[in-house]
Amino acid sequence: MVTKLALLGAGRIGKVHAKAITTDSRAQLVAVVDAMAGAAEAIAREAHCMVSTIEEVLADETIDAVIICTPTNTHADLIERFARAGKAIFCEKPVDLDVARAEACAKVVEETGAKVMLGFNRRFDPHFQAVHKAIDDGRIGKVEMVTITSRDPGPPPAEYIKVSGGIFRDMTIHDFDMARFLLGEEVESVFATGSVLVNPEIGALGDFDSASIVLTTKSGRQAIISNSRRATYGYDQRIEVHGSLGSAAAENQRPVSIEIANADGYTRPPLHDFFMTRYTAAYAAEITAFIDSIENNTAPSPSIKDGLIALKLADAALKSATSKTVVTIA
Amino acid sequence: MVTKLALLGAGRIGKVHAKAITTDSRAQLVAVVDAMAGAAEAIAREAHCMVSTIEEVLADETIDAVIICTPTNTHADLIERFARAGKAIFCEKPVDLDVARAEACAKVVEETGAKVMLGFNRRFDPHFQAVHKAIDDGRIGKVEMVTITSRDPGPPPAEYIKVSGGIFRDMTIHDFDMARFLLGEEVESVFATGSVLVNPEIGALGDFDSASIVLTTKSGRQAIISNSRRATYGYDQRIEVHGSLGSAAAENQRPVSIEIANADGYTRPPLHDFFMTRYTAAYAAEITAFIDSIENNTAPSPSIKDGLIALKLADAALKSATSKTVVTIA
Amino acid sequence: MVTKLALLGAGRIGKVHAKAITTDSRAQLVAVVDAMAGAAEAIAREAHCMVSTIEEVLADETIDAVIICTPTNTHADLIERFARAGKAIFCEKPVDLDVARAEACAKVVEETGAKVMLGFNRRFDPHFQAVHKAIDDGRIGKVEMVTITSRDPGPPPAEYIKVSGGIFRDMTIHDFDMARFLLGEEVESVFATGSVLVNPEIGALGDFDSASIVLTTKSGRQAIISNSRRATYGYDQRIEVHGSLGSAAAENQRPVSIEIANADGYTRPPLHDFFMTRYTAAYAAEITAFIDSIENNTAPSPSIKDGLIALKLADAALKSATSKTVVTIA
Amino acid sequence: MVTKLALLGAGRIGKVHAKAITTDSRAQLVAVVDAMAGAAEAIAREAHCMVSTIEEVLADETIDAVIICTPTNTHADLIERFARAGKAIFCEKPVDLDVARAEACAKVVEETGAKVMLGFNRRFDPHFQAVHKAIDDGRIGKVEMVTITSRDPGPPPAEYIKVSGGIFRDMTIHDFDMARFLLGEEVESVFATGSVLVNPEIGALGDFDSASIVLTTKSGRQAIISNSRRATYGYDQRIEVHGSLGSAAAENQRPVSIEIANADGYTRPPLHDFFMTRYTAAYAAEITAFIDSIENNTAPSPSIKDGLIALKLADAALKSATSKTVVTIA
Repeated sequence: MVTKLALLGAGRIGKVHAKAITTDSRAQLVAVVDAMAGAAEAIAREAHCMVSTIEEVLADETIDAVIICTPTNTHADLIERFARAGKAIFCEKPVDLDVARAEACAKVVEETGAKVMLGFNRRFDPHFQAVHKAIDDGRIGKVEMVTITSRDPGPPPAEYIKVSGGIFRDMTIHDFDMARFLLGEEVESVFATGSVLVNPEIGALGDFDSASIVLTTKSGRQAIISNSRRATYGYDQRIEVHGSLGSAAAENQRPVSIEIANADGYTRPPLHDFFMTRYTAAYAAEITAFIDSIENNTAPSPSIKDGLIALKLADAALKSATSKTVVTIA
Repeated sequence: MVTKLALLGAGRIGKVHAKAITTDSRAQLVAVVDAMAGAAEAIAREAHCMVSTIEEVLADETIDAVIICTPTNTHADLIERFARAGKAIFCEKPVDLDVARAEACAKVVEETGAKVMLGFNRRFDPHFQAVHKAIDDGRIGKVEMVTITSRDPGPPPAEYIKVSGGIFRDMTIHDFDMARFLLGEEVESVFATGSVLVNPEIGALGDFDSASIVLTTKSGRQAIISNSRRATYGYDQRIEVHGSLGSAAAENQRPVSIEIANADGYTRPPLHDFFMTRYTAAYAAEITAFIDSIENNTAPSPSIKDGLIALKLADAALKSATSKTVVTIA
Repeated sequence: MVTKLALLGAGRIGKVHAKAITTDSRAQLVAVVDAMAGAAEAIAREAHCMVSTIEEVLADETIDAVIICTPTNTHADLIERFARAGKAIFCEKPVDLDVARAEACAKVVEETGAKVMLGFNRRFDPHFQAVHKAIDDGRIGKVEMVTITSRDPGPPPAEYIKVSGGIFRDMTIHDFDMARFLLGEEVESVFATGSVLVNPEIGALGDFDSASIVLTTKSGRQAIISNSRRATYGYDQRIEVHGSLGSAAAENQRPVSIEIANADGYTRPPLHDFFMTRYTAAYAAEITAFIDSIENNTAPSPSIKDGLIALKLADAALKSATSKTVVTIA
Repeated sequence: MVTKLALLGAGRIGKVHAKAITTDSRAQLVAVVDAMAGAAEAIAREAHCMVSTIEEVLADETIDAVIICTPTNTHADLIERFARAGKAIFCEKPVDLDVARAEACAKVVEETGAKVMLGFNRRFDPHFQAVHKAIDDGRIGKVEMVTITSRDPGPPPAEYIKVSGGIFRDMTIHDFDMARFLLGEEVESVFATGSVLVNPEIGALGDFDSASIVLTTKSGRQAIISNSRRATYGYDQRIEVHGSLGSAAAENQRPVSIEIANADGYTRPPLHDFFMTRYTAAYAAEITAFIDSIENNTAPSPSIKDGLIALKLADAALKSATSKTVVTIA
């Protein structure tokens, strides 16, 4: 049996998912929807499938599931509509920039019993998975401290910053989810500090480009997140978990691992310069997990609830950074 | 325009190439041939193509090229037949275990002007490519010494050893080609020593399982190859090139790059345990290069001549190891 | 000319300094003082020098300088007495656990014009020095974010915890100084969270054993410090500085750097298990810097003022962790 | 009890040993001898000891042992004289460039029962020691293949080349000894190839500057040695031992281990640029082993016999490289 999928949104991340779908022989992309016909057509041509509309996909009983990659402000509406239409839903993070709207959406999901998976792709990175497995296997004992370094090669354009919801909701949200994934306990308090060190334009838009965040759980486990919108050496994505018996760390990834030695020293190439190449395997594994949950009729993970919690942590971080206080999570 | 390919041989390496073909949108696998119908069918089903026969493929004018993955003793015949049929040919190494037979085949290729590419996949590994590029870019100056470490996770079954042509023709042949690829100068003399340290059965079959080889070029450049049929820590594949201005090295590859620290130290996982996972990217790039040479009508590389030279080096190594002499290449 | 030194305090750290003195041919240890005669004698015998008393050293005009390694609660008194006696003074951190007492001491130092150097040995570690030099050389641009990981192999005995002043004054104080050394700007606000994850006894004594600290400077530079009283894999001491042009990091150090590969993976030995072996070179370089400042009559660095600031940061961290607020530095 | 030592030869390596002696509190340097009075005085002043002559040292009954660091052509004579005088002897390698002369000397040593230790310092490097210990502890199973990479930062002056005995006797001799130390079995055959790739002057003097050597033992264990007189990135000294259960490797050493990341990649500093700084710990441990053998009256290791065997391997390598044959060791 093949799971038939429609892709809603044919932008950058839409392309990533269209490609990821080709790696799972159980999945078939059958329709692409985008406000920009050209974008939809480009993906449809590559995938040998049709260009369609939201309404057509909603009405098409042969379509099992949708992949929502449209602009953030459409996510909650689309989730609700497709939940009510009985489709399985994979939605890019975040559900919405507004917690209340996201909560309302989650309520609809609950009422309809729809299968909704949130696009926290990093959980599926093979290296991060291996760290998680090391914890599960008891190799580092009880988790005590999580350290996440997450830096982009360069800042996004101002246009994007404006609609992004700010660094905590746009960028750190991945790290909040990763911290929860690794801490094994819910976060109780949030401290964040944000600065504008990379680009004053970002500050002019009321956002930060550099941030340090500390999360604390009830039992005192701690997570540190270090964010920057610019790392000259590439896409810096590291995690480290310190436990009672040891430590597990996932190193950075680079496209080629050679080393050149000369009178100036030993030089390895920069890291991946783009999330698409860095997380290619993660995107494929993520789709596979989504198909698994459909085929086996299991609850998808990360769920819409995971999306909500990450969003609340982002809000708390923003409040902490602007008010210079420590914020407790209800 | 799509290049239509037939796969001859649906064994282990045939599957690798069938999968590699799917990564190049310019290539389409249209037919699979194998003496074992089941094997051919399995690949054909996955690739949505037909099971066929040698004769049918020869006669089918819509088929542009063949991928030869049949047993070694059929390579030369198949190359000659398809060369005469005007197909482009990709053939797994070696052309033949017998140099004279391989030379006769190469003559036919020359006469027919057929496009023949030899399956020295390692040339296409992105890490080895990057080392080669570093040389080309002048980053290490003039090449002086090449060091190749090439060890398999475990020895093949005795059945395979019997028909393999021995360690130099079966295993080291890849390293001979890599040495030539990196030395930038033809080999003039060969020294090899072989031992049976891993498995006495291999010795009983008249073969070695551990070998050290030194190649020397006219100007005195040197290449060292270290081979073992068993490395407990995985598929050990390293190259290092020492030049007048510096050195370039490609590190080993592992499926996940995490590190776990505890009272026993810092432990990273073993290497890939199989050539298929180690060289996935290389197999894809190799097919892409083959399609490139067909589309652009350029000479494929590595060529059948490269296959012949590697084979002669293997013969010289065998002679050196058994006679305990240094063997000069004509 | 040889600088003649007296060592006050012949305990663990006293021994370290006695040994460090032997590596600088311009320095000569001439006297050792300790309340425990046996301890003083042991060092004196090894150093071929005399056992003495505070009073004798104060009165001895041939003695140029003292190395104060006595218990913390004697530091301020001894600094004041030897400052008034016109000796150059090297004092282990902290000046005192009480900021007011330390400030009073600093005032005496200022009035007497005494040369006082504080024992923040890590500033002299060759690897950390190299990171600092990379910053000075402009290799990473403007400093933006400092990350310090500082974990002990195991917690000290309860007896020590009781008089230590707590984790921030005893352990993090080194990291506060290192953060200042690398940030290149004074800290404006402090957030700290502390937990008891390693040993409940430490909690029973009112202290923490695990802490995360974030420091922010006026221009928004950020420093993250991660502390634990227990790391099974050894003495974990890493720093990383992220700047506008790149990043500089000092890796962990181990006594031997071999790697053993087998079916379980690639294993390197644990780190140094003790600050003495980890920082041997730093202790030697620190004494050399002290002798330099005496010989060249330059201001010693780190100064007593550096000691005071680090102490204030420790106090702020404690206040932050206990009150769950962000603390501003006056 | 203190062992009193005289240093014969106050050149570069003499200074290294003078310094190493200061690290062992059981040893005392009491006399320095050199044809150049100034050189002897410089060391004597630093060591607070006397300048002396061969004859005086021979006659001085309070002197227990000599450290011979004079030119190679004096080694055998000095060993014989001091052996007859009943002194313990530490002699820099080689015993002599001529095997027959070295054998005659060894005979005198045997007859006199003198304690003679050869200066193969690398056996005492803590990293190489750790590899050796890993073998002894059974962690890699039975040794099968040893790989030694040994490259100097730059070639010595022509004057030195002239009297050095050639690359095999001067440079590879250390690697021959290391190979024997790790192989655990005597070498049966030697293949060597030498080239002049670094400096034609070296060729004009009849020597090589680049060499590859393969050693084979009776049971088929293999050792590969790769030598170059020039490595732009520093003093390249690596060993790797491949065994039936795994592999053990000692990495290169650098003075500081930081890494700087920027748009060009990740760069670590070059290696040590000099044998003295690379092998500081080894020289100290070597003297400690010598003092141990005197204090405990045990046979010193490596012995003069080890020196002889390494020399014979060097001769065999030279013969192999010049005659282009494989040379069997008697």
